[in-house]
Formats: sequence, structure tokens, C-alpha cells
Amino acid sequence: MKTVIILSWWLDSTTLLYRLINEWKEIYALSLDYWQKHLIELQKAKQTCKKLWINHKILKIHFLNEITENSLTRKDIEVPEWHYESESMKNTVVYNRNPIMANIALSYALTIWADEIALWIHSWDHHIYEDCRPEALEALQKTADIWNKWIKFIAPYLNTNKWGIVKEWLKLWVDYSLTHTCYKWWEIACWKCWSCQERLEAFEKNGEKDSIAYM
Amino acid sequence: MKTVIILSWWLDSTTLLYRLINEWKEIYALSLDYWQKHLIELQKAKQTCKKLWINHKILKIHFLNEITENSLTRKDIEVPEWHYESESMKNTVVYNRNPIMANIALSYALTIWADEIALWIHSWDHHIYEDCRPEALEALQKTADIWNKWIKFIAPYLNTNKWGIVKEWLKLWVDYSLTHTCYKWWEIACWKCWSCQERLEAFEKNGEKDSIAYM
Repeated sequence: MKTVIILSWWLDSTTLLYRLINEWKEIYALSLDYWQKHLIELQKAKQTCKKLWINHKILKIHFLNEITENSLTRKDIEVPEWHYESESMKNTVVYNRNPIMANIALSYALTIWADEIALWIHSWDHHIYEDCRPEALEALQKTADIWNKWIKFIAPYLNTNKWGIVKEWLKLWVDYSLTHTCYKWWEIACWKCWSCQERLEAFEKNGEKDSIAYM
Repeated sequence: MKTVIILSWWLDSTTLLYRLINEWKEIYALSLDYWQKHLIELQKAKQTCKKLWINHKILKIHFLNEITENSLTRKDIEVPEWHYESESMKNTVVYNRNPIMANIALSYALTIWADEIALWIHSWDHHIYEDCRPEALEALQKTADIWNKWIKFIAPYLNTNKWGIVKEWLKLWVDYSLTHTCYKWWEIACWKCWSCQERLEAFEKNGEKDSIAYM
């Protein structure tokens, strides 16, 4: 089975990649460069795909920085710290980023006659990111269906939280020191942003210590 | 009312632009550069938006050329001529191009708090271009709905053919010599490609002579 995956080097999409490898799928990975502060994720994705012999393309969608205002790309907007349920977290929303990425993956999937497109979205993202909810997945499937009836969008973690993803990650025996999770741009994780906090919590709940370097 | 329009300088989107101006809408135009052979449309769109004081951005989506194979962008694939219902026309399909463009417009609309996004799709495109059909519009609306309940995708020509569009165009008294319709890259229209043929037919049916230059 041919599967297109949108790959950042976050915990979620990385675990998903290893899951797909484990299922013996033929994988085509796409990574998107939208001038995110954490561009380092793309370098890491590239290195690892090379090592694993995975087909991998990095595509530029810099326009996102021109048409949206958010703290993930704009140097003049600070990534919020700590209170990850708070109003301030909303500035990490890049409007319609995921549907744009997923539609690009669909274009690619149609070209290479793929069977499915795997998305990393998980339940902890639902409350802040509208485009990580089940309705978003349905809208994407509806778009795929206009072309043909076989390409399926799959999101195995749609109803799993970060704890569950880390649990699977540990089961798959992958070296999580390779991943990047911080919303800021440093090589060394800040441990203050939402994303770092979520990751640390997920490791703790699994009784595991995260081995990446924190500030 | 704030309206985002995806603007090529084709007859369809140009007529749509003038219709929206006529309805006194506040217009934000986006044009997409996907390395199409007929890139000249973007220059024309830019010049005219400047003249009409319309907000206009040109965004680069060059990745489309890397992930799809089609005669509109690839120098090694010829744009087919004449038989515009034929199998060969399928190489003018850029897989999922319109949903990608529409999703970019949605991202922009969310950022600037727009009310609607206007699409140029019309009934003559339905048989070849899957993403110009009513189902495509529904899928896009479903995507917009995940964000809020007010942004609407509109497609006033969804059930109108090219003859109807030219009819409206003539009614709006716009100088159609400004538009570009040819799938090839020349300033002067080839009159052999599907797009030129459709245009000529539409003018003829309206008892009008097209004033642009043909080879």
C-alpha cells in the first residue's frame, strides 16, 4: 500500500512514520517549509528519511507567512509560554495550515497513485486547533472523494492524546532523541512553550525520562 | 462586505471581479504563480488591479510543478490542440490545484476577517476538471465551516457556461482586450488550444468579435 505522510519531526508525525514502516507500507513523505521558527525540524526529517531510505520531499509554502499572523512564523510575535490552555495560545494557530498541507499531499497522492494520506492530528490539539478536529478530517475526505473513491485520509491518533502517542513510541523502540518538539527555533528545547510542556508531561505519564536536551 | 477572489486574468475570474466591483464589495485579490506557461496572466492581473485600486497579492506555489505532471506547467508535455473533449485534454488537469488555491484563499480570508471567497468555476469545466464541480464547492465549504460559520465560498457561475460569462462580460462593459485566455505562453493567443477555442465560440454565440490578437 502506498502512503503519503506529512512529516514534521515532531513526536506525533514521527511516531506515525514508524507505525507505517511497521505496517510495511510504501511511504512517500512530504515536509513543508513555511518559514516556521522551528525550521530545524525539516533538517532532522531530511537526515532521518535519508537514513531510513524513505522518499522525501521538502516543499516551500512561504506564502503562509505573508497571509497569516502567528507566533510560529512571525519574528515580531512571541511564542507564548506556560499557560497552555490560555487565550494567548491562539497566536500559535496558523489559519488553515493543515488543510493547505493536506491538500498539497492530496495533489501528490493523485500524481503517484497513492492509496492513503496519513495525518498526525491527535485529540489534544482539538481544543485550540480547529483544523485538527474530526470535522476537518471529514472535509478533507470530501475533497479527496471529488477525485476518486480510493484515496483515504487516515489519522490513527485522532482519538489518542500525547500520552498514548508516547506510549506507542516507546513500544516501537524508536530513538526519540532524534525528534524536535519545541515551538521556538533553538536546537535545544526551551521547556517553557506549550509544545515542550505537553511532551514532558507525556513522557512523565509513561514513567519515562525524555532524553533530548532542554534549556 | 469583504470578499477574497482568486484572480487569474482569464475571462471567468475577470468577469467575476467586475461583477464584485459592481456589487460594491471590498475586494482582496490573490493570484497564484505555479510556474504556469501562461504566467503572463499574473502580470496583466497586477497591472489592472493597480489601475483599479484593488488589493492584490501574488503568491508562489511553485511546488505544484514538482509534485504534479501536466501540460500547463511542464515544458516537456505539450498543451493539446483542437479536440477539446478528447482524452488528451486530461493532461491539462493540475491535480487538486483549485482546492489548494481555495484553501490558501481561506487562510487569507480568516486572517483579514473576510465574509466570502469568490471562485470562478463554471459549468463547462465540470466534465474535465473534477475540482470545478459542485461537490468540490461543497467540500470547500465544509472546510471553511470548521473555522467559523460565516465565511462562504461563492461561485456565481457554477451553473453558467462560457457563453453566459461572456454575455455578462459584455453587459458589464469591460474591455476584454485586457484578458488572457490561452493555455500556451505567448502574448498572442494560439487559437488552437481548448481554452482559445472555448473563448472564440463564446464570443461568436454572443454575436461579438473578440478583439484580442490571435496567431
